Amino acid sequence: MTTYAVIGAGAVGGFYGAKLAQGGSDVHFLFRDHAHHVRTSGLDVRSVDGDFVLEDLSTHEEWSTLPEVDVVIVAVKSTANEDVAPRIPAILRPGGAVLLIQNGLGSEPLFAEALDGQGEVIGGLAFINSERTGRNQVTHMGNGGLTIASYLPDYVAAGITDWMRAIAADFEMTSVPVQLQEDLVLARWMKLLWNIPYNGLSVLLQASTAEIMNDPQSTELVEAIMAEVIAAAASDGRELPAGLAELMLDATRKMKPYATSMKVDFDKNRPLEVEAIVGEPLRRGQGHGTPMPVIETLYRALCFTNARITSS
Amino acid sequence: MTTYAVIGAGAVGGFYGAKLAQGGSDVHFLFRDHAHHVRTSGLDVRSVDGDFVLEDLSTHEEWSTLPEVDVVIVAVKSTANEDVAPRIPAILRPGGAVLLIQNGLGSEPLFAEALDGQGEVIGGLAFINSERTGRNQVTHMGNGGLTIASYLPDYVAAGITDWMRAIAADFEMTSVPVQLQEDLVLARWMKLLWNIPYNGLSVLLQASTAEIMNDPQSTELVEAIMAEVIAAAASDGRELPAGLAELMLDATRKMKPYATSMKVDFDKNRPLEVEAIVGEPLRRGQGHGTPMPVIETLYRALCFTNARITSS
Repeated sequence: MTTYAVIGAGAVGGFYGAKLAQGGSDVHFLFRDHAHHVRTSGLDVRSVDGDFVLEDLSTHEEWSTLPEVDVVIVAVKSTANEDVAPRIPAILRPGGAVLLIQNGLGSEPLFAEALDGQGEVIGGLAFINSERTGRNQVTHMGNGGLTIASYLPDYVAAGITDWMRAIAADFEMTSVPVQLQEDLVLARWMKLLWNIPYNGLSVLLQASTAEIMNDPQSTELVEAIMAEVIAAAASDGRELPAGLAELMLDATRKMKPYATSMKVDFDKNRPLEVEAIVGEPLRRGQGHGTPMPVIETLYRALCFTNARITSS
Repeated sequence: MTTYAVIGAGAVGGFYGAKLAQGGSDVHFLFRDHAHHVRTSGLDVRSVDGDFVLEDLSTHEEWSTLPEVDVVIVAVKSTANEDVAPRIPAILRPGGAVLLIQNGLGSEPLFAEALDGQGEVIGGLAFINSERTGRNQVTHMGNGGLTIASYLPDYVAAGITDWMRAIAADFEMTSVPVQLQEDLVLARWMKLLWNIPYNGLSVLLQASTAEIMNDPQSTELVEAIMAEVIAAAASDGRELPAGLAELMLDATRKMKPYATSMKVDFDKNRPLEVEAIVGEPLRRGQGHGTPMPVIETLYRALCFTNARITSS
């Protein structure tokens, strides 16, 4: 049986970890805080797929008490990666895998470097729309799943690996649909097509997705940003599916007013994932010679805002 | 003796009107509110050039009681132009002049149309840094003056006119230095080189000039916007003086933290002068084929913010 550790057991890691444990996997959780509360009261999952409380789970407050596992699920914010990556080798058995469930681009190399060839890095993309709603509670509102794809240096498409299949098999014991992708960076560009405009503009304009879509000027900004993402992905050798932008615009128009993860971070005065979500894609596209003036403007404005947060 | 009416006797109109009256000109003020207070207590001017209280001034609460004058000074926000312009012919003697002291571009045609050839339109640019600091008080902190230039259709350079000289002569009786410019749109582009980046970013980033200049990313944004203004002006046939951008950057870096007029409007939940300061220059530059992606992004974001203000 595959053993898991979950680093960053919040809205995303807490949900996926709880699902795996509920499905019968052996899962160990690292909680930054509230470990005691989770241990005594269980992890309370409110989900569109059915509520449950996971009890008797293996909770840890320190890295040092975590056992060595086959798969480390990292679901911290990308802003914490520098702290987390170097600690992974101590808890990952040689030949194991890191599943990095994060937004944005460019985080995998740091983990690959930390593993130094002693394990596989798999990128994960969450489509679950979950939120931490209490000390030991996660609320899951979406109905998407988890997309995973293995990482190779410079994001060369890695195909479907044994670890990907093993993780997917464990999730088959749960209600979480897992998609296996051969090309991690294609999957990341597809998600960035939504994440760059909506995360970025929600902070820049202090607006919900609904407010953004109800105004013609901000809608134009979304479309201009999407066009730049499509061009950047193309210059990176990834053709995004035709009509994907229109599909996302339409879906977002129909969504309930939604605060993006970056807006939630802003509201809580937490560091923003500017580099992973905006800076890294910008540098990658510009590195291929793609003009991205709207995203560059957005990026600089977000850097300003983020500097204000991190220096306060 | 030239007779004047001042429409919009706030921070800018109140200051220039008071100076003219103090210098001996015959000036009639239209006050939207506080006319009674000004009539009984006088107009209190706190100025780096010396404080004074202007008493016994001709104050009006209604357009209908204003006498016919030679020169109407219009110093309302550009957002009020549609209301103000049609009322001018009733108080301007045929052959008189409108002096439009406003920020931005594109407001003169509306007044020229209202005058229908029965008078001259002169654009005015204020460099005084003044604020309304009480019901009957204006505080003047800058040490610049007033630049004026006559308007001809499509902003063809109009040279120095008799009305310009007459107005300058009246200001010679005051401490306000007046510059006569032959080319109104050149003067306007020069001021826009400061106004577009600093007004726009102060609202977009919710920041003072000092905060903007203390961050490398927002400073880059200022520079990118200035480069687009310079290119737009060049495509409009106006070469901005070499080194002007650097001069402004440097001067702004040395200024005390300063809330731009657009930021003050934002803070007071008043309509923003988005069209005059950003939209009109953008359309003019783009009309000449100049790419202005950073200013266009700024414009759309400000339109979003302004729509939120005007619909609230």
